[in-house]
Parts: sequence; C-alpha cells; structure tokens
Amino acid sequence: MSSYDPNNIFARILRGELPCERVYEDEHTLAFMDIMPRADGHVLVIPKVEARNIFDIPAEDLGRLAISVQKVARAVKAGMDAEGLTIQQFNESAGGQVVFHIHVHVLPRWKDVPLRPHTGEMAPPETLKAHAERIRRALAAG
Amino acid sequence: MSSYDPNNIFARILRGELPCERVYEDEHTLAFMDIMPRADGHVLVIPKVEARNIFDIPAEDLGRLAISVQKVARAVKAGMDAEGLTIQQFNESAGGQVVFHIHVHVLPRWKDVPLRPHTGEMAPPETLKAHAERIRRALAAG
Repeated sequence: MSSYDPNNIFARILRGELPCERVYEDEHTLAFMDIMPRADGHVLVIPKVEARNIFDIPAEDLGRLAISVQKVARAVKAGMDAEGLTIQQFNESAGGQVVFHIHVHVLPRWKDVPLRPHTGEMAPPETLKAHAERIRRALAAG
Repeated sequence: MSSYDPNNIFARILRGELPCERVYEDEHTLAFMDIMPRADGHVLVIPKVEARNIFDIPAEDLGRLAISVQKVARAVKAGMDAEGLTIQQFNESAGGQVVFHIHVHVLPRWKDVPLRPHTGEMAPPETLKAHAERIRRALAAG
C-alpha cells in the first residue's frame, strides 16, 4: 500500500485550498456534496486526520467518522425526503477508490431509482447548493 | 421506518438458533461469511445490539461496529490476498437492505474482477469454510 499523499484533493479541501459545498463540520470530520453525484443529495464524509483508507486510519478516528456518517445520514434522508440510504466506502484502486483520503459515500435512495453511473460529469453548482441547503436545514432541525 | 423485528435471520444467528461460519467475535460485534458471497471472502459484520440500520443504532455501538469492520477488513485483505476492499451498508428496502438487522458488507476486490451479481445462490459450505479459515488465520496473526 502506498503512503498518504498530502496533495490529494480532499486534503486540499481540508486546507481550504479548494472549495466545497459543506453540509457538516466538527473538530474531527467534514461532510460536503460530491460534485459528481450518483444520486441527488450525494454527500461525502471525511475525517480531518491524514489517512489513505480503512487500512491506515487510527481506530478512534474511524469510530468518530462513523458517528458523523450517522448524523449526516439522518439529515440526508430527512432533507432529501429519501426512502433509504446506501453507504459505500472504497479502499485502494481495485476496491474502487479514486481519491486517496478515506471518504464515505452517503447516497439517498428512492424505490425504483437506480444510482447513476459514474459519468465524470459535474453537477451544476446551484443544484449542489440547493441540495446542501436542504440537508443543512435538516441537520439544524436535529 | 418500521421497528426492529427480533426474528430476523441475523438476530437468530446471534441467538445461536441458526448457524454461521464465524470469523470474528467480541463483546459487541460478530463477523461471519455471507452465504451468498458477491466475492470470494465476502464477510458480514454486525453489532449484537438490536438495531434495524444506521438510523436507529446507538452512536456508541456504531463506533464499535466500525472498529470491528476495520479489524475484519485488514484480515480479509491479508487472508484473501486481496488488492482492495469495497465496503457497503444498505438502509431500508429502497437503499438495498434485505435483512433488517444492521450489517456491513466487507468485499475483497481484485483488479478486473467485478463483484458477482446477487443470484440468491448459496456458496458450498466447504468453500465458505476454506475462506473463513484464511481470514481467521490472518486475524490470529494480527
């Protein structure tokens, strides 16, 4: 396994060098809209610690990450009026990982609506902003 | 969301009413082979607490579950000589959930080997046992 590359795009988002449409942040984790959403309201949750994936993240940080995923998951379901939720986390290229800072995909789901394929196409910023606003409101409502 | 059904098959496995090919167990969690593996070495990790999915599991139990998933993930990668790992967790029917006791799928991956479709076909017990043995040895080796 390769080591952590501090210039991956999520590390740069954490340092404020790249923008993101943020929905949640605490001392240890950050959640923001996936710019190539596979479902409306697709959110990524990442830890602030430098970790490549599930193999090297400290256990304590992984536990905190899971708890943030739960907070975000509840808000995504409520804010997006979703019927269900699929969570995915990819490790190493063979496991589907593309950005090498550990991240958890939170995907709202509706009956008979398949996940969209990875197209590499970015969603319009105003769409991401509108979905983020719904999720942030649900988080604020608790 | 419906409430927890104490007669779901994972609850019955936890009570010892149904068998499983166990790879890991501690005070709060259990890991065993998926009987309809989508990849060789496909393991499920579940908490012992009664919880339907990510929406109702107590945060503390979710954190512990994540840490067990990490232990198992490392052993699955090592024991199965995997190149990567995909983690999936489904919530409610629309999210892909079939058994309503929260569970995390740990799927070993190899380059150019796609996940098998859900066929509903069970793997031969001797295959599951052989894969479980490789994962248990990796866990024992730490």
